[in-house]
Amino acid sequence: MKDWLRFSVAFWHTFRGTGGDPFGAATKNWPWEDGTNSLAMAKRRMKAHFEFMEKLGVERWCFHDRDIAPDGKTLAETNANLDEIVELAKQLQSETNIKPLWGTAQLFMHPRYMHGAATSPEVKVYAYAAAQVKKALEVTHYLGGENYVFWGGREGYQTLLNTDMKRELEHLANFLQAAVNHKKKIGFNGTLLIEPKPQEPTKHQYDWDVATTFSFLQKFGLTGEFKINVECNHATLSGHSCHHELETARINDILGNIDANTGDPQVGWDTDEFLTDISEATLIMSSVVKNDGLAPGGFNFDAKLRRESTDVEDLFIAHISGMDTMARGLRNVAKLIEDGSLDELVRKRYQSFDTEIGAMIEAGKGDFETLEKKVLEWGEPTVPSGKQELAEMLFQSAL
Amino acid sequence: MKDWLRFSVAFWHTFRGTGGDPFGAATKNWPWEDGTNSLAMAKRRMKAHFEFMEKLGVERWCFHDRDIAPDGKTLAETNANLDEIVELAKQLQSETNIKPLWGTAQLFMHPRYMHGAATSPEVKVYAYAAAQVKKALEVTHYLGGENYVFWGGREGYQTLLNTDMKRELEHLANFLQAAVNHKKKIGFNGTLLIEPKPQEPTKHQYDWDVATTFSFLQKFGLTGEFKINVECNHATLSGHSCHHELETARINDILGNIDANTGDPQVGWDTDEFLTDISEATLIMSSVVKNDGLAPGGFNFDAKLRRESTDVEDLFIAHISGMDTMARGLRNVAKLIEDGSLDELVRKRYQSFDTEIGAMIEAGKGDFETLEKKVLEWGEPTVPSGKQELAEMLFQSAL
Amino acid sequence: MKDWLRFSVAFWHTFRGTGGDPFGAATKNWPWEDGTNSLAMAKRRMKAHFEFMEKLGVERWCFHDRDIAPDGKTLAETNANLDEIVELAKQLQSETNIKPLWGTAQLFMHPRYMHGAATSPEVKVYAYAAAQVKKALEVTHYLGGENYVFWGGREGYQTLLNTDMKRELEHLANFLQAAVNHKKKIGFNGTLLIEPKPQEPTKHQYDWDVATTFSFLQKFGLTGEFKINVECNHATLSGHSCHHELETARINDILGNIDANTGDPQVGWDTDEFLTDISEATLIMSSVVKNDGLAPGGFNFDAKLRRESTDVEDLFIAHISGMDTMARGLRNVAKLIEDGSLDELVRKRYQSFDTEIGAMIEAGKGDFETLEKKVLEWGEPTVPSGKQELAEMLFQSAL
Amino acid sequence: MKDWLRFSVAFWHTFRGTGGDPFGAATKNWPWEDGTNSLAMAKRRMKAHFEFMEKLGVERWCFHDRDIAPDGKTLAETNANLDEIVELAKQLQSETNIKPLWGTAQLFMHPRYMHGAATSPEVKVYAYAAAQVKKALEVTHYLGGENYVFWGGREGYQTLLNTDMKRELEHLANFLQAAVNHKKKIGFNGTLLIEPKPQEPTKHQYDWDVATTFSFLQKFGLTGEFKINVECNHATLSGHSCHHELETARINDILGNIDANTGDPQVGWDTDEFLTDISEATLIMSSVVKNDGLAPGGFNFDAKLRRESTDVEDLFIAHISGMDTMARGLRNVAKLIEDGSLDELVRKRYQSFDTEIGAMIEAGKGDFETLEKKVLEWGEPTVPSGKQELAEMLFQSAL
Repeated sequence: MKDWLRFSVAFWHTFRGTGGDPFGAATKNWPWEDGTNSLAMAKRRMKAHFEFMEKLGVERWCFHDRDIAPDGKTLAETNANLDEIVELAKQLQSETNIKPLWGTAQLFMHPRYMHGAATSPEVKVYAYAAAQVKKALEVTHYLGGENYVFWGGREGYQTLLNTDMKRELEHLANFLQAAVNHKKKIGFNGTLLIEPKPQEPTKHQYDWDVATTFSFLQKFGLTGEFKINVECNHATLSGHSCHHELETARINDILGNIDANTGDPQVGWDTDEFLTDISEATLIMSSVVKNDGLAPGGFNFDAKLRRESTDVEDLFIAHISGMDTMARGLRNVAKLIEDGSLDELVRKRYQSFDTEIGAMIEAGKGDFETLEKKVLEWGEPTVPSGKQELAEMLFQSAL
Repeated sequence: MKDWLRFSVAFWHTFRGTGGDPFGAATKNWPWEDGTNSLAMAKRRMKAHFEFMEKLGVERWCFHDRDIAPDGKTLAETNANLDEIVELAKQLQSETNIKPLWGTAQLFMHPRYMHGAATSPEVKVYAYAAAQVKKALEVTHYLGGENYVFWGGREGYQTLLNTDMKRELEHLANFLQAAVNHKKKIGFNGTLLIEPKPQEPTKHQYDWDVATTFSFLQKFGLTGEFKINVECNHATLSGHSCHHELETARINDILGNIDANTGDPQVGWDTDEFLTDISEATLIMSSVVKNDGLAPGGFNFDAKLRRESTDVEDLFIAHISGMDTMARGLRNVAKLIEDGSLDELVRKRYQSFDTEIGAMIEAGKGDFETLEKKVLEWGEPTVPSGKQELAEMLFQSAL
Repeated sequence: MKDWLRFSVAFWHTFRGTGGDPFGAATKNWPWEDGTNSLAMAKRRMKAHFEFMEKLGVERWCFHDRDIAPDGKTLAETNANLDEIVELAKQLQSETNIKPLWGTAQLFMHPRYMHGAATSPEVKVYAYAAAQVKKALEVTHYLGGENYVFWGGREGYQTLLNTDMKRELEHLANFLQAAVNHKKKIGFNGTLLIEPKPQEPTKHQYDWDVATTFSFLQKFGLTGEFKINVECNHATLSGHSCHHELETARINDILGNIDANTGDPQVGWDTDEFLTDISEATLIMSSVVKNDGLAPGGFNFDAKLRRESTDVEDLFIAHISGMDTMARGLRNVAKLIEDGSLDELVRKRYQSFDTEIGAMIEAGKGDFETLEKKVLEWGEPTVPSGKQELAEMLFQSAL
Repeated sequence: MKDWLRFSVAFWHTFRGTGGDPFGAATKNWPWEDGTNSLAMAKRRMKAHFEFMEKLGVERWCFHDRDIAPDGKTLAETNANLDEIVELAKQLQSETNIKPLWGTAQLFMHPRYMHGAATSPEVKVYAYAAAQVKKALEVTHYLGGENYVFWGGREGYQTLLNTDMKRELEHLANFLQAAVNHKKKIGFNGTLLIEPKPQEPTKHQYDWDVATTFSFLQKFGLTGEFKINVECNHATLSGHSCHHELETARINDILGNIDANTGDPQVGWDTDEFLTDISEATLIMSSVVKNDGLAPGGFNFDAKLRRESTDVEDLFIAHISGMDTMARGLRNVAKLIEDGSLDELVRKRYQSFDTEIGAMIEAGKGDFETLEKKVLEWGEPTVPSGKQELAEMLFQSAL
């Protein structure tokens, strides 16, 4: 089970989540916090983080550069702060056998990124983002991270009235190509991942969903260099089921990682809840199994406690509940595979394409004239039932 | 104005729309209808159609094969029916100087297509669809159509539980490649267009939106052979503004045609209303002007009278209102261009990329090390206001 | 279990559902259908219906007047047709011990109702609807129906531009009052139920959701005479969870019946699917148990086979799957009640209102001056964690 | 025009809006801010606010208690801070002839309100909210406010699993009754307004929309004491058009005020944008004119600059643009009234209810037996076209 379920704790939600929301102030009063954003606080927090992971029995973590270490007055000072914390993390890693699933750069909180990072109309902001990603790649590499994630929270627009979308997308492509170049230069072999999201904070984010992201990668010759990190709540915000996004990534050979969370189907923003729905978990795990697992990717709990959950034990309850749910999902998939009925139902639906004319079509040789002749010969086709209710019954019976 | 606004009447909505909906029976009692689906009725209807267009002063029309002529008992009989009506249409065209903007095959109404046409799991259905598209391409060519449209209403799935999405998408690609081959074989020089829609009737349609469709075309080597027909109501159903979809198509050089209609922002299905919103029309026309027009494409009024609009004059009112709205939109764009302030606002936002480091980045030469050095030299960037409220004021002032 | 789960088969979906949708023709070819809408066919269909229910072991059915018997040329003829079929149903009922859960009048299919029935701007349409409901009430009473349902599919508007909403709502209230009067006159003791739906086919339906319907009933003095039939798919279309709508009805003492179906959270129209989600079923049953059951109401399977499900056995699979799901839900609720942890969590959250100042407030005696004094005395309140993750874990553990 | 358009500046958005969002830090650097939350800063800010309003020529303002004055360590200290600022505001008001349109208490930012204020499960929080509203009512009265608003941002739930909705709603009703009592006690004659919002920050807010709020008021005997403040962006988030919400309030005689803003139809959260759409503004003004204006209510610009709009002039541009839009809307309504065609179209649709049987029905005397007899006599009714396209054309022509 451990091989399939490569769990990771998200440093930002678990250790930097304050409970603040657009209408409310921070609610968390963790005992290890002293109310400052100092280097000393960053260190105590990192130690709490490793203590938490050890108690939880989770072996991977994910981080943003700016969440683990405080900003300095200049980039140089900020990088020095980061180095100091990274050194501590490196030491804690070696003591605990915990490693980064992935690292990433936070390119959305600071006001300089308000118009985007790689897609900002200001060249100096683009450059700043480049410098920041350069460092984050190096740091992730140094810590033994297995992947590196790009989530373009502000790579998008608020209104087309003031936006040159074409130019912004070209900048983004050049930025990502430069990241690939730098990755190779420093010898980092981890997977680069793009995490789609349709919107929020922007009205439109360029990496809307898996298909949009794949379109972009193809247009700019970046396929082969990037895989996708599918976040379930982002999937539902884009109008798709999480299962759809996973399958879209999988059949295009770009499924690299899952941000295991969930949203509220009646809510139009990212709620980043821990996923506890057993049916959803089973669908997710069925994609993972078909993908032969996610390694070197895994399941990052990109999920936060509800604002109103303020006990330290809530942090444990939430993660344990999330892990149990995915484990139950995996067990259900095993049951479905053993039973075989559902797979057989699907296989049989398509069997007319396995031989003769069907095979010819699949080989790309089904020209319209030949097919027209066949139709005139065959007459009206018989079309069997889709058996959706049976498929649903078989699926639910495994839960 | 006529060159910009290449309007077209949609035969199906205007002459086959019954007013039926999932909860209600037909409401239209057009005086030319006799209640049958006979060849004679199809001819009287076609004459009414040309009379309507002449009175309206519209020079283009669009059609589905099955809407202009009745099904026969066999494909051969059906094709013969179609030929008879096409001959009449050809004659009426020559008398009126009206031509098809585009033709298309109806691959969604008949029960044989319930699981899809090119993506049906039944090879005989795939073949039937091939034969139907073959004929529709030929007929469109014969009538002098300038384009041919693929709307894959049932090319998608109702549930992933019974679906092999990978195989279905490969079938769809092979089908479209065969269509390209046949087009070339018969010497049809019109543009092939794909019309995205996110869902309805399926839960998920493979041509979800412009980006998804472009991704598919790229993956299967079909770019260059297809452009996009953007329908505004489909755009909003996919979570995008119509303007966004038009711009996405435009900057990828695949904007070919517009299905000029609109939906209700509070309604989750395709309402296909005539567009009367002046602000929306101005945004649409701004994309069209930036695209140097749509020719050989145009504006197809893929819009239907409300079920409760049952007077013949309502058909005229709706089309006139739709044409006036687009014309007002075009005039507003002219005002915006003459004034120049909005364009200038956008141009200035990006000017830091016009020279030096910005130009270097645009040339693909902005490596991370160089940029990091620049940032250390420059310090914290200054980021100007996005001026969204000013842009909105400038835009609205032109209306 | 039988007492809690008073299941009912919906005649219309199961025996009149054709598989047609806005983009597709009928797909079902049931062996008992002869393609006509004759009285003879209506009789054969009614017998098939009772045979189906007996095989399924379901003891209740629901019907629309127009679905069980064909329209005649006049209302008198239509009523005579209805009487003939009702007589047959009465006989089949006595042979099988099956009874109507509820009856209703179909006031949305016929073109005369295109602008609404009780809210049509045409007085003659209002009158026609009155005559139809009169007869449907009498027929339901005659067959021993336990309830009667109003679903105002077209009681709403397509655009406010042509609508006098105030006048329409007053007409609706007068119509419902007249229905109450007629019910009493004929001695029908069944419950009158209103079934909310937010929209579709109208852009806005007046009975938007439970709260809106309750507001209307209160304004027009109709509380006490009507309860609510909550349909789960209508709930989600209105932006609420089904559980929310059930609870809203329950705490206002107006929960009368459940249309047990489900929708697709990514789809913006009524899909009327059989509910198979075990988590959803558990939430639904928890409301039912808190309501001490639904009797004389029950669970009507207002759900239809997917258009692509065309085998007779699919009708059985779907209903069996739906019944099993609700039964599993009930068993889960029993587990939750026996365990008691979740109830205890909620009880403890509110215990500060059980005594002293809390009790005073609940008694309506908490004036602001007294409370201000208390606050000055108490200082800053301590606010405990909401324990949402714990509640979710407790809930999921019971599944 | 001034009488119809009683504009108001929202202190919180314009003077406390920082540009922060869930993914980003503050972006505004107004020259009058010193980075503190001191009393001195609160005073300088209040002066800037009055200077801004004078320059803008707006005569009304709206405020939250906690936005105009900083929290103290205790309620007593907080109230003393508030008094000091209110004294300054009073003086500035007398110098400028500017008055509050309304005041309100901020019951959502502080962590103590995380589970709600009047609906918190903790009695001490309920009491704290009572004390805060008491003071806010008094302060609004003292400043000559014409209205007082309740927006229950956290009066709702995050999950039903931990919530006793019935008890919470009863607490809310008792709280509002106590507010009415206190209002009368202090002699405040302003209108009490409730502002509905469907959700955000909660998953479900009890004052979901106008109808839900009206249902609540009726159930708890509070009609007559409260009117509604309709916010356009809240309307669209609840699945309604703003026009629908305004009309629902108007026909129930509870339309009291408008929060004049707008949202993005493709975005699922509150964007609080300045409304610049001329068509929307015309619909809004048509409700206002039918309501004989809003006084003593008005139009509060509950709208914020985009996060990326960081120039002081943007504050002016946004407000001017918002005011111009509403003024254009009013002018359009005048044109529509003068023309009369649209009103006539509506009047004629309903004229069959003006006399005879129609009038009898409207008088509540249309019993089902009488109507059935009439139908048998009349035969099938004739139903005219709804003329929606004509209505839309008439409407758009006035823009």
